[in-house]
Amino acid sequence: MRRFVAHSARNLITRRRNNLTTCVLQHCTFPLRFLTTASPGYLSGHVASAGSASAPPLTLDTINPKVLKCEYAVLGETFILAQRLQQELKENPGSHPFDELLYCNIGSPHSLGQQPITFFREVLALCDHPAMLDRAETRGYFSADAVKRAFQILNHFPGRATGAYSHTQGIKGLRDTIASGIEARDGYPADPNDIFLTDGASPAVHIIMQLLIRSEKDGILCPIPQYPLYSGSITLHGGSLVPYYLDEDTGWGLEISELKNQLETAKSKGITVRALVVINPGNPTGQVLAETNQQEIVEFCKNEGLVLLADEVYQENVYVPDKQFHSFKKVSQSMEYGEEDISLVSLQSVSKGYYGECGKRGGYMEVTGFSPEIREQIYKVASMDTCSNISGQILASLVMNPPKVDDESYESYSAEKDAILSSLARRAKTLEDVFNSLEGVTCNRAEGAMYLFPRIELPKKATEAAKAVNTAPDAFYARCLLNATGIVVVPGCGFGQVPGQWHFRCTILPQEDKIPTIVSQLTEFHKAFMDEFRD
Amino acid sequence: MRRFVAHSARNLITRRRNNLTTCVLQHCTFPLRFLTTASPGYLSGHVASAGSASAPPLTLDTINPKVLKCEYAVLGETFILAQRLQQELKENPGSHPFDELLYCNIGSPHSLGQQPITFFREVLALCDHPAMLDRAETRGYFSADAVKRAFQILNHFPGRATGAYSHTQGIKGLRDTIASGIEARDGYPADPNDIFLTDGASPAVHIIMQLLIRSEKDGILCPIPQYPLYSGSITLHGGSLVPYYLDEDTGWGLEISELKNQLETAKSKGITVRALVVINPGNPTGQVLAETNQQEIVEFCKNEGLVLLADEVYQENVYVPDKQFHSFKKVSQSMEYGEEDISLVSLQSVSKGYYGECGKRGGYMEVTGFSPEIREQIYKVASMDTCSNISGQILASLVMNPPKVDDESYESYSAEKDAILSSLARRAKTLEDVFNSLEGVTCNRAEGAMYLFPRIELPKKATEAAKAVNTAPDAFYARCLLNATGIVVVPGCGFGQVPGQWHFRCTILPQEDKIPTIVSQLTEFHKAFMDEFRD
Repeated sequence: MRRFVAHSARNLITRRRNNLTTCVLQHCTFPLRFLTTASPGYLSGHVASAGSASAPPLTLDTINPKVLKCEYAVLGETFILAQRLQQELKENPGSHPFDELLYCNIGSPHSLGQQPITFFREVLALCDHPAMLDRAETRGYFSADAVKRAFQILNHFPGRATGAYSHTQGIKGLRDTIASGIEARDGYPADPNDIFLTDGASPAVHIIMQLLIRSEKDGILCPIPQYPLYSGSITLHGGSLVPYYLDEDTGWGLEISELKNQLETAKSKGITVRALVVINPGNPTGQVLAETNQQEIVEFCKNEGLVLLADEVYQENVYVPDKQFHSFKKVSQSMEYGEEDISLVSLQSVSKGYYGECGKRGGYMEVTGFSPEIREQIYKVASMDTCSNISGQILASLVMNPPKVDDESYESYSAEKDAILSSLARRAKTLEDVFNSLEGVTCNRAEGAMYLFPRIELPKKATEAAKAVNTAPDAFYARCLLNATGIVVVPGCGFGQVPGQWHFRCTILPQEDKIPTIVSQLTEFHKAFMDEFRD
Repeated sequence: MRRFVAHSARNLITRRRNNLTTCVLQHCTFPLRFLTTASPGYLSGHVASAGSASAPPLTLDTINPKVLKCEYAVLGETFILAQRLQQELKENPGSHPFDELLYCNIGSPHSLGQQPITFFREVLALCDHPAMLDRAETRGYFSADAVKRAFQILNHFPGRATGAYSHTQGIKGLRDTIASGIEARDGYPADPNDIFLTDGASPAVHIIMQLLIRSEKDGILCPIPQYPLYSGSITLHGGSLVPYYLDEDTGWGLEISELKNQLETAKSKGITVRALVVINPGNPTGQVLAETNQQEIVEFCKNEGLVLLADEVYQENVYVPDKQFHSFKKVSQSMEYGEEDISLVSLQSVSKGYYGECGKRGGYMEVTGFSPEIREQIYKVASMDTCSNISGQILASLVMNPPKVDDESYESYSAEKDAILSSLARRAKTLEDVFNSLEGVTCNRAEGAMYLFPRIELPKKATEAAKAVNTAPDAFYARCLLNATGIVVVPGCGFGQVPGQWHFRCTILPQEDKIPTIVSQLTEFHKAFMDEFRD
């Protein structure tokens, strides 16, 4: 094991390059290009473009500096290295001390073996090829409620034309279904005209950032640690990320006093704070907010005139009996706040939950408390891409209105759903316990979402070794872990953390038969790493 | 008929509002909000948000002015009015002098009755629900090559996991297929690493604009008339549109002297021109460039160091025997220009061609002649949205590698394809002839794409009536046409045109059984309009 750690450090040193980009949030100073220029095949795998001296004039000095500045750690350096290692393993089996890569870097359940929910896929297939519905013999191979649902859905499309552009906000009938699902979830009314269906949740984040950010003097309050889509999108649109720190010691607690302090600090720097981002359940932190806490947050946004951007894509992923998901819409309605009181954007996605259909790129934002004029501007920006993909729209309507108890599919659907969620809960607990058993590592429980975010106290020698190769200590640790075991995690610097602290994000998504391997590899690696670098 | 024209003009006057936004390109000064605030139901159909005095503080004065400034005419005012009329017809049949809306505003073939290509949908359905492949009895209901293709495609996905995120650029095996398709089309090599699969072509445009535009001092040479995605994206990203005018008198010819003049003019204003947008076949203009013209364009971009952004989404839509589509990649390769000579982005989409699968949101950009460092920046921006939707990716691979002559589906596939393309050619010719028969209207032929862009000489009284309701004359004409006949077109001001000239864009997409109705309605309306306003 030790040799891999040393080998990895040597590799880092050998390949040292000048830095060009640094992590927005902390000095994760291991640039993306470091790896890709050093290794052909992945991004730069074609000879012709490999840096000819007379290449066309576009250079890093002449592109938009906001692009240069933004980072997206989840698919950043560690992932790119992992892809290279995977290619090397394929071309040269035995070239690394592991047989396969274990991707714990990204919340993509199906890529690690989770199976799709049968009912959802039946409906999607029928809607893709409605000719099957017209033939009794093919209908017979689908559950009765999938057939019924497919008919219902196709009836929302004039001429069954699922190949046409939809309304920019999405097919009205599907938005009706989603609105009903929101009402059933919250116990408060929802309006289909408030819903914008999007390709996953990410485009919604960009639209809101585009709307709000005028210059670097506009700030967005963002949790630290945060999902780097937010920091990336804020940077790309030229705004300022105003950090508020979640309190690791209280299970990643969100303190209103911290929000107020950071808001005041931002104001004193001349920054106009426009919005507050809250990720609940948390990514990468896994906490589930208490309803009373959410009430305080709503009150804060109302008083300060901030748009509340509620990332609620993990609403179905809650694993502990003492916590429950409450949407911010429900909480603000329960406080009797309405359209006049608070501007609220709630994000949902088909990529998460028990369904985990990342490849379908379905999602929506529910937009309330914006004036008609502003809504038209949101519509206009969304309309430039015409509409989101129809399969994703259909799937979004399905996850918000799954089979009911009297439906033929209900039993198998429930069994599939429960198996996934209970397994995720077990995996979360197992991995939490493993992390807490490692020297110098502490880890809050994952109450929800799909991640653990353990903190590592790294020995001084390790941080020095990292510094010598011009990288953040947790990025160094993640890279050593990857080179030694094939386990891919994302270093904490990509999410932001209290300066001087180090973490990494590890998903709970490997299937249960892989967990023992991960546990033993991780434990063995960590011991070797600490032995190598212990002060 | 006359009463509808007059009624329409009165309506415009009654609903007059203050202007807030103006067309980027010309004074299409009929603001989006004009219609939506005047009419509940479509965008602002919920009472709670209808402009309360104590609404949250976000106002048109405090949002990003770039958002306020950008326009997207295709789904703009005329379309929104059309949606309202459709709703009114549904709720109150007979309330308008037509029974149905005829959407000639948008290139969405399936919404007007075009059927999907069976082979493509079979493969999509099988990939959505692979369980069907495992059962001989269900396999039997699909063509043998669809089954084979589905197996081939699923083999590109580890564990057949079409529900996982893919590589940001798209599934490698699908990019291999697309690269082979490009090679077969062009006769020159294509590299799968150059391909970025995207949700339709629009996200690729945004990525390139984000990359290139640093401030309003960066300019993008864009044809006038142009597809307003370009003007919208340039505005949204804070750049300057540098217009070059297509010459209507020579069939929307693209003159190099015009490019040079406009480039010099832009330079003299302190604008750094970064890229040239060419839409071939043209949108909204329908011309197909000659290869010699393309060579001149390539030479121009090479000499001036401009990125050539080639919108080639209509590459399968060519209707005249004397013209042929040539990709800019092929043209530049035939000139023996390679990676060192010209930075080229070629866009393709599953939404156009004979397939017209707009709802699937599939597409790609092929990126050549960018240094590895720049490619990494493109990758990074794309990675923030993780990947494009998998069904769209699969479909993109299918359209670039459709059934071959020995495949079981070939005959039916070819019949479907040929029927669609030959029908489009007939419709293009019929509508072109009709427009040319109208008083004061001239119309170039649609050599390709999906549109005609007739020019109208409007009588002075009509332009005055338009001015009285604070709208552009062609927007006024389009609105009157819609109110009288239900035919939806997009006024020329949304695409840009020589100042003082007026046009509208009309798709060739209504099915052939609708064409006689459109011809008679249009002719009757136009006569009534001219009689009403003739000087």
